[in-house]
Amino acid sequence: MCTLEKRGDIYILTLTGSDEHRLNPTLVDSIRSALRRVRAGPASPSSALVTIAEGKFFSNGFDLAWAHSSQPRLELMSAKLQLLVKELISLPMPTIAAVTGHASAAGMILALSHDYVLMRKDRGFLYMSELDIGLVLPDWFMVLLKCKIGDAKVRSEIILTAAKLTAEMAAVRGVVHSAHVGAEETVEAAIRLGQELVKRGWDGNVYGKNRMVVLNEVLEKIGNCDGGG
Amino acid sequence: MCTLEKRGDIYILTLTGSDEHRLNPTLVDSIRSALRRVRAGPASPSSALVTIAEGKFFSNGFDLAWAHSSQPRLELMSAKLQLLVKELISLPMPTIAAVTGHASAAGMILALSHDYVLMRKDRGFLYMSELDIGLVLPDWFMVLLKCKIGDAKVRSEIILTAAKLTAEMAAVRGVVHSAHVGAEETVEAAIRLGQELVKRGWDGNVYGKNRMVVLNEVLEKIGNCDGGG
Amino acid sequence: MCTLEKRGDIYILTLTGSDEHRLNPTLVDSIRSALRRVRAGPASPSSALVTIAEGKFFSNGFDLAWAHSSQPRLELMSAKLQLLVKELISLPMPTIAAVTGHASAAGMILALSHDYVLMRKDRGFLYMSELDIGLVLPDWFMVLLKCKIGDAKVRSEIILTAAKLTAEMAAVRGVVHSAHVGAEETVEAAIRLGQELVKRGWDGNVYGKNRMVVLNEVLEKIGNCDGGG
Repeated sequence: MCTLEKRGDIYILTLTGSDEHRLNPTLVDSIRSALRRVRAGPASPSSALVTIAEGKFFSNGFDLAWAHSSQPRLELMSAKLQLLVKELISLPMPTIAAVTGHASAAGMILALSHDYVLMRKDRGFLYMSELDIGLVLPDWFMVLLKCKIGDAKVRSEIILTAAKLTAEMAAVRGVVHSAHVGAEETVEAAIRLGQELVKRGWDGNVYGKNRMVVLNEVLEKIGNCDGGG
Repeated sequence: MCTLEKRGDIYILTLTGSDEHRLNPTLVDSIRSALRRVRAGPASPSSALVTIAEGKFFSNGFDLAWAHSSQPRLELMSAKLQLLVKELISLPMPTIAAVTGHASAAGMILALSHDYVLMRKDRGFLYMSELDIGLVLPDWFMVLLKCKIGDAKVRSEIILTAAKLTAEMAAVRGVVHSAHVGAEETVEAAIRLGQELVKRGWDGNVYGKNRMVVLNEVLEKIGNCDGGG
Repeated sequence: MCTLEKRGDIYILTLTGSDEHRLNPTLVDSIRSALRRVRAGPASPSSALVTIAEGKFFSNGFDLAWAHSSQPRLELMSAKLQLLVKELISLPMPTIAAVTGHASAAGMILALSHDYVLMRKDRGFLYMSELDIGLVLPDWFMVLLKCKIGDAKVRSEIILTAAKLTAEMAAVRGVVHSAHVGAEETVEAAIRLGQELVKRGWDGNVYGKNRMVVLNEVLEKIGNCDGGG
């Protein structure tokens, strides 16, 4: 599912395996468990989290096959992801997603829930696929997209044309922070960025609380959902 | 008032006549009636709506002469326009405004209530005239402007300097999608865009519901106003 | 503390002295008192306000030394500043801040509470210092920043990296309206801009009410706080 490694002050969370990293409750709980270990980790003055995914997908979204159209299963997946996003928003350190494969629908939301998104240029798309596959975007996805993407025309392009954004398209539109040559370069840049942020010496708890202010509309929207675990 | 024509999968809604297309209840109800016919139309896999206006004005705003400062009449006009905007937001297909004349105040709001605004370069302005004529913008206009125009400085320029935006100014500022040589070219481009969107083969109902998510703050603001009809 | 001067139709509010213009209740009440004189001033068809600060600081934020960590004192300062911001938002004329020194934290919020921010290039930063000094941004600062800065990445840079923005950086990012060679040029440009706005001949009350619509989320957030005075 996922592994957690610490290199210096950088936590590296890796979604392992060459599958699509579909966000079923098992994977989401595995990531949440890793984040709990990050929180419980040896307190250094400050740290940073870098999230990586092996294979061709960062994450291809909810695990619709697992849900097989069961409403309770869909709701459980959504509630679990909301908990994960909430935990990322309050995590007491900067968070960076190194997107080296496709990030679709809920997978794109997971990537954008990090403070920084770095993306490889040579392959991979950010893609809200809902319109193409006959689904309606959950309200809370929209709140997150509004907090993260300032340009109304870009949000419309993403949702109402189901645009597939390469790294370069996403960087120009202010959807990701930077575009990098390949997978390795993207991960290296993410770790380097993490190290630079760590050097600033911020108090992680203060960082997390300020991020909660920046994204408070998301927190208000996802509210007190109960995803168990 | 207005006519509705179907060319292939494209519905063309035309505000007819060379008047200012002031948004009194009669004109608004006429447009709403056309939208009802669009919804009831022969179901094709997907369609698109293009709104056009004859003459020098797309729409010059509310019909203040008709209202002659009567508060109930002003409220009725506002309620009617809110219903129209609500119906455009839930319309099960992409919507395109071909702005080939001035679109002022409520007329600019009507244009921006479409998913895409295409505008001619050689004449015509987008113009929130309220400040110049001593009026205060209704709150719900502001909510729509915030959903449609990401740049805070541009919103301020529009409202707090009553700027008159040509097509080229509006395109640079992200207020419209594209600027075209003349009236004919604008309408042609709008129909071409409609045809391209139709080719994507989206389910219209899913499209409309996703648009309702994108603009849910507008829907929440205009709420359950009662404009009769 | 501060002086008020009228040159033609332009009110010039000056924070006097070469100190840091820390926003303790005494300074804030002094500014509020000046704004009351502006409101009570001889009615001209229209006016404009230009706010200037002497010395190296526009304002270096709340007076944390005065508060010496007393929660009631911190709350009083916050409530007072909210009242000032509310009064600036309803002021019946355009407002311009000529930022010729550092504007940090609450001092940056004060600058951004004006309709236009003009800034000198040769020195001075806009700087939300909270993260660097271990503080958490108040929610209402965030609401104002969202209304004033459209670009989500820029807001994140300001709050979650505590970026120090020079005039040129701030202009490129849409945080200020223009950057000027030095202090004198900035003040001159602010007065010239005020004169141009006055020439538009807007009704000040209508202007103020439209600004209240533009910033209504801020007004809703700061609500009915009671700062006395």
